[in-house]
This record gives sequence, C-alpha cells and structure tokens, in this order.
Amino acid sequence: MKFRSLLVAVLTMSLSSALQAQEFSEQQLAQVKQVREAASQSNLSWQLLTSLTTEVGPRLPGTENDKKAVAWAKKHLEQLGFDKVWVEEATFPEWRRYHESAKILLPSEQPLHLTALGNSISTPTEGLSAEVVLFETLDELIAAPAGSLNGKIAFINYRMNRDIDGNGYGPAVRARNSGAVEAAKKGAIAYMMRSVSTSHHRFAHTGGSHYKTGVTKIPATAVANPDADQLARLINAGHDVKVSLNIQTEDLGQGTSYNVIGEFTGTEFPAQYVLIGGHLDSWDLGTGALDDGAGVALTMAAAKHIADVKRPKRSIRVVLFAAEELGLWGAKAYFKKHKADLDNIVAAAESDFGADVVYAFESNVNAASLPVVREIAAQLAPLGVKYIGKNSAHGGPDLIPLKNSTSAPIFALHQDGTDYFDYHHTADDTLDKVDPAKLKQNTAAYAVFALMAADAKTKMAGK
Amino acid sequence: MKFRSLLVAVLTMSLSSALQAQEFSEQQLAQVKQVREAASQSNLSWQLLTSLTTEVGPRLPGTENDKKAVAWAKKHLEQLGFDKVWVEEATFPEWRRYHESAKILLPSEQPLHLTALGNSISTPTEGLSAEVVLFETLDELIAAPAGSLNGKIAFINYRMNRDIDGNGYGPAVRARNSGAVEAAKKGAIAYMMRSVSTSHHRFAHTGGSHYKTGVTKIPATAVANPDADQLARLINAGHDVKVSLNIQTEDLGQGTSYNVIGEFTGTEFPAQYVLIGGHLDSWDLGTGALDDGAGVALTMAAAKHIADVKRPKRSIRVVLFAAEELGLWGAKAYFKKHKADLDNIVAAAESDFGADVVYAFESNVNAASLPVVREIAAQLAPLGVKYIGKNSAHGGPDLIPLKNSTSAPIFALHQDGTDYFDYHHTADDTLDKVDPAKLKQNTAAYAVFALMAADAKTKMAGK
Repeated sequence: MKFRSLLVAVLTMSLSSALQAQEFSEQQLAQVKQVREAASQSNLSWQLLTSLTTEVGPRLPGTENDKKAVAWAKKHLEQLGFDKVWVEEATFPEWRRYHESAKILLPSEQPLHLTALGNSISTPTEGLSAEVVLFETLDELIAAPAGSLNGKIAFINYRMNRDIDGNGYGPAVRARNSGAVEAAKKGAIAYMMRSVSTSHHRFAHTGGSHYKTGVTKIPATAVANPDADQLARLINAGHDVKVSLNIQTEDLGQGTSYNVIGEFTGTEFPAQYVLIGGHLDSWDLGTGALDDGAGVALTMAAAKHIADVKRPKRSIRVVLFAAEELGLWGAKAYFKKHKADLDNIVAAAESDFGADVVYAFESNVNAASLPVVREIAAQLAPLGVKYIGKNSAHGGPDLIPLKNSTSAPIFALHQDGTDYFDYHHTADDTLDKVDPAKLKQNTAAYAVFALMAADAKTKMAGK
Repeated sequence: MKFRSLLVAVLTMSLSSALQAQEFSEQQLAQVKQVREAASQSNLSWQLLTSLTTEVGPRLPGTENDKKAVAWAKKHLEQLGFDKVWVEEATFPEWRRYHESAKILLPSEQPLHLTALGNSISTPTEGLSAEVVLFETLDELIAAPAGSLNGKIAFINYRMNRDIDGNGYGPAVRARNSGAVEAAKKGAIAYMMRSVSTSHHRFAHTGGSHYKTGVTKIPATAVANPDADQLARLINAGHDVKVSLNIQTEDLGQGTSYNVIGEFTGTEFPAQYVLIGGHLDSWDLGTGALDDGAGVALTMAAAKHIADVKRPKRSIRVVLFAAEELGLWGAKAYFKKHKADLDNIVAAAESDFGADVVYAFESNVNAASLPVVREIAAQLAPLGVKYIGKNSAHGGPDLIPLKNSTSAPIFALHQDGTDYFDYHHTADDTLDKVDPAKLKQNTAAYAVFALMAADAKTKMAGK
C-alpha cells in the first residue's frame, strides 16, 4: 500500500510537471526571470507614485486635480511607450467637501476630530449642536425605539478588527454604509461613527455613505478613534455630552471623469488581454498613496517591465479606473462598455490594498486554467509569495462589476493589509507610508503574473 | 600591590555599605518595599490621568479649561487626603489660537497641515499667499542675503533626530525659537518650519516661539512632517511652490493662572520637603496626556501611595506648575516666591517627558548626599531603573528657574523618550498614547524616590 501510494504520488507529480512544462518554454521561463529581476530592482513604480502623489496630490473625482491625474496618467503611459493609450468616459455623482469642524461642548470644551463621510449633506451654515447618544453597534442603533433620537446625534462606537486580510472591514463598514439612514429613522439630526480604522492616531477616516429614498438625509460623519474613545468615556462616566458640528459639502449632480487605459499589444492574440490596474482617483484628505496611487504606479511599471523584455502572445492592458471611491463608477462604465467581449479577458487583477508585501497568490478560474496558475505560482515563489489553492479569489473592488456580469478569470495578489486600515481614507495616506522596497516586490509580482497569464499556451477562463 | 588594592577596595565598600545602612533602618526599607509594591499595582495614576484628560481635556493657560484644571487639581489633592492644599498665582503672556488653515496652491492645489507656533501673530484676516523658499537649516536661513526673502515665505526643513534621551530636541528647537525672527530679518512675510518631531504622521507640532524687539513680527508656523517632505520634494523638483496661509490668533496681554500645591507634612522636619510634580497646563491641540497629564497624575499618586504607608521625616510636596508651555511662568513664580527658603528643598524632580518606562536614575547633589542617592538607586533597581553615576541631572523644565537661583539637589528619573517626540505638542497627544502598565512603573519609581529622599537620615543638598 505504501509503495503504491508513493507510486501514484510520483506519477501525479510527473504528470503535473509535464503539463505545466507545456505551458511555458524554457525561453519563456527565462524571460519571466528576467522581468522579475528587473522589476525587483527598478525604481520606476516608486518614481511614478512619487510624481502622482506629489505633483497632483489628492484626486477627488471631478476636481481639477482629478483632471490633472487623468492628464498625468495619459502622459506617463505614452512616455512609457505603451502601444495604445486612450481614455473612456465615466460619470458619477459629484461631491465636494468644503469645511468640517466640531467640538465637544459639555462637560468641557474640546476639539473633536471628525470628517464628513462621502455624499454627506451639510449641516446648516451655522452648524448644529445636540446631545450625543452612544451605541456600540449598528444593530443596537437599529433596535432603538422610534423617536428615541429626536433632536439628538447618534454615535456608533464599533471597533474594527485588525488582520492581515482586512476581514474587519466588512463588519465595520456596515455602519458607514447605512448608519445615517438608521439614525435618521429614529429621529437623529446628525450621525457620527467611530472611524472604520485600526489606528490609534487622531485621524478621521472618510469613505462612501448612502441615503435612502423616503428617509430624511442627515449629516454623516466619522470621528477619529481617540475622539471616539473620549466620547465613549465621557458618556459612560454619566456625563451629558453635547457636541457642535459644522459640515459644509456640496452635491454637484452628475460629474464626468475618465478611465485611462494603456495597452501593450499581444503578438498572437492581440484581442485577448490581461487586465491589471488600480484606481486613479482618491479621497480628498490625503494624497492617495496607499489608496490607490500604489496600485496605479505598480501596474503601470509592471507592464513596462514586461514590454522591456517582450510583447507576450496576448495583450497587457493597464486600466486606471475613475471614481472608484464614490462607488466604482469607472469600473461600472468600463465593464458595461466592454460587455460584448469580456471573454477576451484572460486574467484580471486589481491592486487596491496598499503596497505592503504581496504574501499570497490566489486564482478564481476554471479547472483547465489551473496548470497555468500553478506555474505562475511557482514563478512568484522566489518573491516570497505563497500559493493559496482555494481558487476563490475576489480581486479588487473595481472587478466587482466584472464578476457580476460574467464568469471572468480573477486573481488576487494578496497584499499584507495588517496596517492598511491605519491610513485608509485619511489625511495620513501620504507617500511616506509606502516602503519603496515593498513596492518593488509588488511590482515584480504583478509583472510575473501578467506576463505569464498573457504568454501561457492555454487561454485562461473563469469558472 | 594587588592584595593591598583589594584590601582598600573591600574596606571602601564596607565603609560605604556601613554608611548607606545608616541612612535607612530595616523598617524604613520594608516601608519602601511596601510603597513600591502598592504603587506598582495601583490604578490611581491612570484614573487621575484619565479624569484630567477626559473631563478637562486641553489646558491652554488662561482658558476656561485651565481654570477647570486648577479646580480639578485642588479637588483631587484634597480628596486624596493631602495635609495641605493651596494655590499660588502665576502670571504669563496669554495667547489664543482661533483658526489655522493652509494650502499648497501651485503646482497643484492640496491641503497643507500646519499649526501656529505659540505666540505667533495672525495673518491678515483674508490670509496671505506667497512663494516658499526652502532652507535645510536655521544657519542656512541666517546666511541668506538681506532682502532675499522679500515678500516670500521662509521654510526650514530641519529633521529632528530620534533618541532615548531626546537629544535631538535642542538642535531642532532652535528653528522654533528664533526662525521667525531670522526669516523676518531677510524680508519674509511668514515663516514655516518642519515640525520639531520624529513622527511620520501628519500632525503639526506646536510649541513656544519668540519675537525680537526691532524685528518685524511675522506669522510663525510648523508643518507636519509629511507636508514638509511634500514641500521639499516639490521645490527640489524645480517647481515654484506657492502656499496660502490663514492663521488667526490673539495676544491677550497678561493672564493669570495658579500653581496648585499639595503637601503631606513631615514628622520631624516639616519645613524641609521633597518637591515632585509636573505642569498642569498643556497645549490646546491635544489633551496633554503625555505632556504633561502623566507627570501631574503620577506625582500626585506617588505622594498618596507614600502617605498610605507613613508620613516621612520631611514633607512631600507635589507642585503642579502653571503655564509651563508658554515659558515656565508657574515655575518662575514659584521659585521667586519661595526664594528665601529654597534650601528647604531636599530633593526635586519633575516628570515632564511622557510616561514611557523610567529606565535610569540620576542625581545632581553634593558629595555628602551620595550615600542616600545610592540607597535610593538600590531600591529603584527592582523596577528596572539603572543608576547613572554622573551626578549631573538636569531635572525637568520647571526646575530650570530653581537651578538658576540656587544650588539645589536635583534628580532625574529618566523616562524612555524614544517615541515622545512623535506626539509632543500635537493633537495626537491623547490618553491612548499612555501605557497603563508603564504609568504604574513611573508612579512606583517616583514614590520610592520621594519617600527615601524625605525619610533619609541625611538631609540632601546641592553641589
């Protein structure tokens, strides 16, 4: 039995090796190595990220800076020698933040660090002030009696969990998505939440929020975690806590921006392509280095490193999505426009989780594509990337509309997200938060992945 | 020779031991142990710090909160059972910050995180905007040609060094003390400096600054380090960088506040006392937890832990100084008022360097006091505190006027300051930055020190 098991194992491994070996020639594997090493040593992604975050800065969709970012991306894709560079229009609900300030008034006056959530309406020009009612969770707020918050400010103090894969985000973000609606249903005149954040620094984290037809819109805000602690301590000590709040924002109706796209054209199947990218827009508070300048810079650089060595069989397309932060509007436009030929996508991966090391690689493909996946994984291993065999990758947020409309071959190059939510959507998301060495590793991982997906014998497909 | 050297060494040690043993009885040493253990386990200092930073919050001298802090301190000293509690007036130049905002205008508009330095004048109501000229050091600015900054904003980008003893602060703070004066001499209309800070977070660090008679006053500000990096990158890349700036502050003339003092009265020499304390005021941006709520809370608690066990021979006096941040005004008033009897001070130590672990103990006393010092050091050793034998301690900032007016016996319980300047004088100086376990260790160290200094046979004195 033991011998037979061993024999089966050896045969299976040999067969697997043989199949894998057929996907890529020795020459191709040498090219992969060449690309990996070049990308691992190149400053290109760092230079691009530095330029975007310094010379353009924050990139809220529809702003002058957003227009500058589109021009920046187009110019740099052209300068990098992409075979085709073009833009595609995307529309979105345009929104601006003009002013935000707040104070704790009672029992002692002190500044309160908060920020308006995206899409929040303004307070009256002179602001508003009211008593704060504390809830530990969104569900606690939902369970509050009708009318119990009349004239008050609802405050949810839910603490996000820190983990490498950011699994704390989903549970925490519920209060951002619908907290203001639930608070308004109970009569609240404003909404505050603890930031969706793992940080203990005094930055408020913004992010998208939503209203619901038929429910009164109220100002929606997030407070910095130390301020959330302060509010909770005061309230739990039995004080009547009164806060004043002044938020000035504007809903500008439908805005327009552009997905910026660059492609290196494939030699055998030019219509087929690997889609990599990030989103070009950012929130207005920081300079969008981690979210998502890094994704923009490293996927641009990865494609360039491939093209420096060869044009693969299939095209490499870098898509820099517009208006992700306001609701994936660039991605929706892209996948709608390209609906008829989504099966040309042989692999898709978005980098939108900062730029800490890529520690794992995961696919979401049909069985016939798995030998290619395993060969890619083998070539990522020298970068310290482990292979996750679950074959159920989600990809980045801008791939959600793709997944919703077709069975696409989706990949995740999992970045270590342990610290990501310390900075996410804050003023503190600035260039210095990116480690140049880690950015190189990210770039190399994307380059290896994109080259091999584009150059494999088998055209990969989704489940 | 060898034998004789050994003999001398042994005799010296024995003599030294004998002398030390005479300073404290076995019973006294048992009491020291009891106090050390009680303080190491007590939450009292944490409770006091929590109450001060939460219920009072920021404590800029002269504000309503400053008045609340004085009332808070008096109430808590009384509640802790101090034998005497009183206040002593201190006057200071009162100053307020009302508004501060700034933007980089060119080459791309983006927020600039800065703060007015203490004592800064306002910009015009509508703000000002001008080109920024970069200097790496104060000396570079001083060397600039006369008139070369006419109509411009001077910006010094000096980077502070991180170290356990904060030795980077002195060199860095020169630009805060006199940068605005030097900039004005060259014709600048405003002054910006990189924060005196070791942090990479986007907080600007405020702090005292000065003008000079005969030199035009210009607005004086510090920018957060990531913003200083951004300005330097833009300027070094060859861009003409224009910044707009709006600072609204007010000089309110002479203000009044109070040193708050509590004393446990000594049994044999009640007029003689150990002085421990911190400063009650704080900057307005944070809640003054590290600077200096911790010093206030831990010295109050240390004295109480001693009194729970005994009244020592000499008094223990906790002095909570007023208006330190604006120029040691409480300390100046205290040591002036008590000028005639400063030789009653048998030991003085101020905690004003955060609340990371006390890692070392150092004296500044005459030779006759050294046996007491060594016995204290031996009783601090179980807390992980090493003895520094240099005998040249500086003590805290509020002891500077004492040192300047007399030869007082001064002590330093050196806190680990490696991270202190990440938070110092920022909005991020909040309760969560203090580790409750480390605060207990600090409290125990101060309690051991104060008890032994007050209860020693020898009255210690300065050099």
